[in-house]
Amino acid sequence: MDKPIIYEMETLKEFSIDMLTKAGMSVQDAEIITDTLLFAELRNIKSHGIVRLPTYIQRMENGVVNQNAEMKFKKMKAPAVGMLDADNGMGQLAGYKAMQEAINIARIYGIGMVTVKDSNHFGVASYFSMMAAEKDMIGLVMTNASPAIAPFGTKTPLLGTNPLTVAVPAKVGKPIVLDMSMSTVARGKIRISAMQNKEIPADWGLDKDGNPTTDPNEALEGSLVPIGGVKGSGLSLIVDLMTGLLTKTCMTGEVKNITDMSGPSKTSHLFIAIDIENFMDADEYKEDVDKTIEKVKSLTPKGDNDIYMAGEIEQNVMEDRMSKGVPVDMEVVDKLNILADRYESSKL
Amino acid sequence: MDKPIIYEMETLKEFSIDMLTKAGMSVQDAEIITDTLLFAELRNIKSHGIVRLPTYIQRMENGVVNQNAEMKFKKMKAPAVGMLDADNGMGQLAGYKAMQEAINIARIYGIGMVTVKDSNHFGVASYFSMMAAEKDMIGLVMTNASPAIAPFGTKTPLLGTNPLTVAVPAKVGKPIVLDMSMSTVARGKIRISAMQNKEIPADWGLDKDGNPTTDPNEALEGSLVPIGGVKGSGLSLIVDLMTGLLTKTCMTGEVKNITDMSGPSKTSHLFIAIDIENFMDADEYKEDVDKTIEKVKSLTPKGDNDIYMAGEIEQNVMEDRMSKGVPVDMEVVDKLNILADRYESSKL
Repeated sequence: MDKPIIYEMETLKEFSIDMLTKAGMSVQDAEIITDTLLFAELRNIKSHGIVRLPTYIQRMENGVVNQNAEMKFKKMKAPAVGMLDADNGMGQLAGYKAMQEAINIARIYGIGMVTVKDSNHFGVASYFSMMAAEKDMIGLVMTNASPAIAPFGTKTPLLGTNPLTVAVPAKVGKPIVLDMSMSTVARGKIRISAMQNKEIPADWGLDKDGNPTTDPNEALEGSLVPIGGVKGSGLSLIVDLMTGLLTKTCMTGEVKNITDMSGPSKTSHLFIAIDIENFMDADEYKEDVDKTIEKVKSLTPKGDNDIYMAGEIEQNVMEDRMSKGVPVDMEVVDKLNILADRYESSKL
Repeated sequence: MDKPIIYEMETLKEFSIDMLTKAGMSVQDAEIITDTLLFAELRNIKSHGIVRLPTYIQRMENGVVNQNAEMKFKKMKAPAVGMLDADNGMGQLAGYKAMQEAINIARIYGIGMVTVKDSNHFGVASYFSMMAAEKDMIGLVMTNASPAIAPFGTKTPLLGTNPLTVAVPAKVGKPIVLDMSMSTVARGKIRISAMQNKEIPADWGLDKDGNPTTDPNEALEGSLVPIGGVKGSGLSLIVDLMTGLLTKTCMTGEVKNITDMSGPSKTSHLFIAIDIENFMDADEYKEDVDKTIEKVKSLTPKGDNDIYMAGEIEQNVMEDRMSKGVPVDMEVVDKLNILADRYESSKL
């Protein structure tokens, strides 16, 4: 494989906004989506980065995502909760609006919860939980996703990997950002092993009969292993019950994958912001988080490894890439330039 | 081992209330604690059942739990959140009050969140999440616990098993009740294997160097395996940050085990109730949960097993035991009768 090309963040940003606006999106919306894509690139979550741009644009062009979505908050009876109807628009835009609203509600009521109905893939979940952490709040976000995990005792992938993220602010230290799916690994990792003809560890995938397999191809025909078996499978269902069902967007098992162009993806999300200030002085809390980080880092490591907190590695890469630039694989650059060609625009 | 004795629920209830009131507790408080103990017995969660009675009473007698606790809600700036200072009283009483308050708040504001400061072991977590489900709400509860899990990359048990429970109501079907700790199994299961001189599966425990072990004694000297490795370890820390730290009760690693009589256990909890009615008609939601249960149960089972939803097996046992009685192991009966002797009261 060729060496990746290093781009300055600003270059990628301009390119992404250019493509999205050429595809018919407003500058304001294009900026939000671009910000989430760059967030992924900076944090080395490549699967959710700029590589997604052609897919997102294809979805808009095909009309399976509504690029003229009129997102409206439903009128609720109670004031500390909200529901945004995303009108089948981009998940990133819905997520941004919904978490903003949850934060605004939390500032008044102490906690704010906003669900999003009829949305789409929203990118990296922790982008949204960290919006709350930046405001001295604890942010909690979940989303449903397309079928990948078999409910415990079955062999049919019905449940999504259904990511959950929680972000907690620190004072001097980096925020603690847990961002996890309910499977032991992402399907993408198994796909890479399949391409490389490599065996996978026995706790990654199950074959179509629900048995552990080290053959990546068998695992791709089967399902992903949930963390803690019955626990991960249960957590995944709970996410469905609190997103798809609670927003009446779709039933368990009905979310479509981002690459499935046969119709709306019927994704839904949940955003919670908790204002720390009500419980104790926010600065004091953040100092206590700092102390916790120090305490964990002062433990004896298992081997000669460093000890990292949740989200720390990503934050380190982010700081590094903001000054040194973002490496993008040649094959991704090629795909993006095909898009640029199509819009008769400047290539990367 | 001798066969267990079958008791009617009412007999166990009277015995428990008798013991707790003899130990100085008010009838009202004794009834709540008894209800949580019987809840555990009925659902076959023996480790949290009536076997705990002597320990709880010992804690009260030793003064490490404050049986005259004056539990007060802190005055909060915002209306949808609350914090109960449990004054080092019984966790069950604090949990009951806190979830009641969360439910009351949710009825007005759509969501209610109540933390509990300076509390103690509160029994089975799902007792409290189910309080919300009974009111057509989604109930979410977490609690911190004494050190058992090593933070990822370390070998020192610092994090608790830190249970999380979510209860979701159904209409005709049984409520879906996830109640899970962040370790693959409870330490109790490893202890039983040690007593029986039996090997344990490699994903239950780690030795003191942080390596997987099949020797239960090595595991007891080491730590419990978190679900999904870095994920379970991360989730456990998040629970700490949202309980111990957010209530300023204690820092990570400072909760004392229920059998540790050297001082207050410094446990804290978090209770959230979400009123479904704001998002959609609660009856319609519960019908959708019913449909989800049917959908999962209609899948092909992995083998010739039945398919159960989270909490279903416990609910089945509960219904059975409510009519047929509760089996209690002889050794537990003996322990309870020693207690009865000490209070010169009727034996079981």
